[in-house]
Amino acid sequence: MRIKLIIEYNGIWFCGWQRQADCKEHPSIQETVEAAISRVFGGDIAIQLFCSGRTDSGVHALGQVAHFDICDTFLENRWSCNIRSMPKAINYHLGTNAIAVKDASIVDDNFHARFSAKMRHYQYKIYNSYVDTVFMKDRAWHVHKALDIPKMLAGAQNFIGKHDFTSFCSSQSNDKNMVRTISRINITRNQDDMITIDVSAKSFLHNQVRITVGTLVDLGLGKIHPEDITNIIAARDRRKASQTAPAYGLYFMNVEY
Amino acid sequence: MRIKLIIEYNGIWFCGWQRQADCKEHPSIQETVEAAISRVFGGDIAIQLFCSGRTDSGVHALGQVAHFDICDTFLENRWSCNIRSMPKAINYHLGTNAIAVKDASIVDDNFHARFSAKMRHYQYKIYNSYVDTVFMKDRAWHVHKALDIPKMLAGAQNFIGKHDFTSFCSSQSNDKNMVRTISRINITRNQDDMITIDVSAKSFLHNQVRITVGTLVDLGLGKIHPEDITNIIAARDRRKASQTAPAYGLYFMNVEY
Repeated sequence: MRIKLIIEYNGIWFCGWQRQADCKEHPSIQETVEAAISRVFGGDIAIQLFCSGRTDSGVHALGQVAHFDICDTFLENRWSCNIRSMPKAINYHLGTNAIAVKDASIVDDNFHARFSAKMRHYQYKIYNSYVDTVFMKDRAWHVHKALDIPKMLAGAQNFIGKHDFTSFCSSQSNDKNMVRTISRINITRNQDDMITIDVSAKSFLHNQVRITVGTLVDLGLGKIHPEDITNIIAARDRRKASQTAPAYGLYFMNVEY
Repeated sequence: MRIKLIIEYNGIWFCGWQRQADCKEHPSIQETVEAAISRVFGGDIAIQLFCSGRTDSGVHALGQVAHFDICDTFLENRWSCNIRSMPKAINYHLGTNAIAVKDASIVDDNFHARFSAKMRHYQYKIYNSYVDTVFMKDRAWHVHKALDIPKMLAGAQNFIGKHDFTSFCSSQSNDKNMVRTISRINITRNQDDMITIDVSAKSFLHNQVRITVGTLVDLGLGKIHPEDITNIIAARDRRKASQTAPAYGLYFMNVEY
């Protein structure tokens, strides 16, 4: 039987969703959750989790989606009547407060957390103030100089639609097809000097949201102009876009299936 | 010359504003900030900070106000032209990310952070969901059962005005006069299962906001009823009110002068 999980985590305590060769101090989210699920079922079975989108070290999630298969007898003996209690059981075995399973449900065997996804929603948080912050440390990118939101919004429109986003993909990526379709970019400034940038697409290239945000921030600082975005995309050259925004400002919000 | 500071802090890393006899592992916010200010002026002068309201261990602040006096020659030699740069200088010397001075200004010698205060605003955060949380841990009280907001609002109205609040004061308090005037209680549920309770008064008794919130939660759970509040206040007996809500859900928001 296939189980779908919704998972929240604070990315700064992990090397990312999957184990990274260059990060030995921190565990991966995947191995931590897999081990907890295994313990829920007695500890002697191996669990393999498939997630909707592998997040890098530092990237947070409020609604990561993952699935795993468990043989029916295990599930029926222990969980068939109250799948709702499974999140608490997994969380109990996690051994960390930096991950929380929010929901569990039984899904069709055709469901796949990654391949069935129709739309992925990310949010990037920027703390935009010259003063220091206590509560947004490691939870938002602190940009000290004032950002021009209308200029960022004007530039953001040029990302919308289907483009070859080579300029906005990590140069270490192994992706073959660089064409993606950005469905939405929304930017709002709320109280407390927080700016949120919502970006939605069916799928993203590696680091695409963070490089997009880095470029939007350069727009907001006046280093580049809204009309430059079209040229940066057309260049298909990572060096034409701006810096990759820090991982700890990025939140994987939710997935539509 | 008198300097007024606006200070933000994450209370869980401190034993409270002032040193507590029963908490030896954690420093106090007061001593931490005083030491940093002293270092800003060369390290060989003692600074004494007076705050608007002493917060207990675990209680956070977004807008604590404090003042200190510094002799004019110290100030003029180093800071008279750019008092705006003082927060960054203090923060540099703090040696912690859990406190941030947000603002500094020169005020009249008659100004007193505590005695000049006309209104103090606190906010209490409740995470109201049966599911676990990562990001609100140590930042909100996690109440698992659903709270009835209209019932809480109905009961909250009975706190408004001038009353003897003995029932809502820590039994360890040394306060002589138990009469306080609650000017406002507002309760809102926003997205993400967060409930915020805003409470305003010229001054509060020790633990008053936390005992008020504990009682409002019992209202929301249906353990007591809105009309009971009047009797609980009239009893002038701490045992008649509910539990003291956890410190880490409470935020000292700002002070009006």
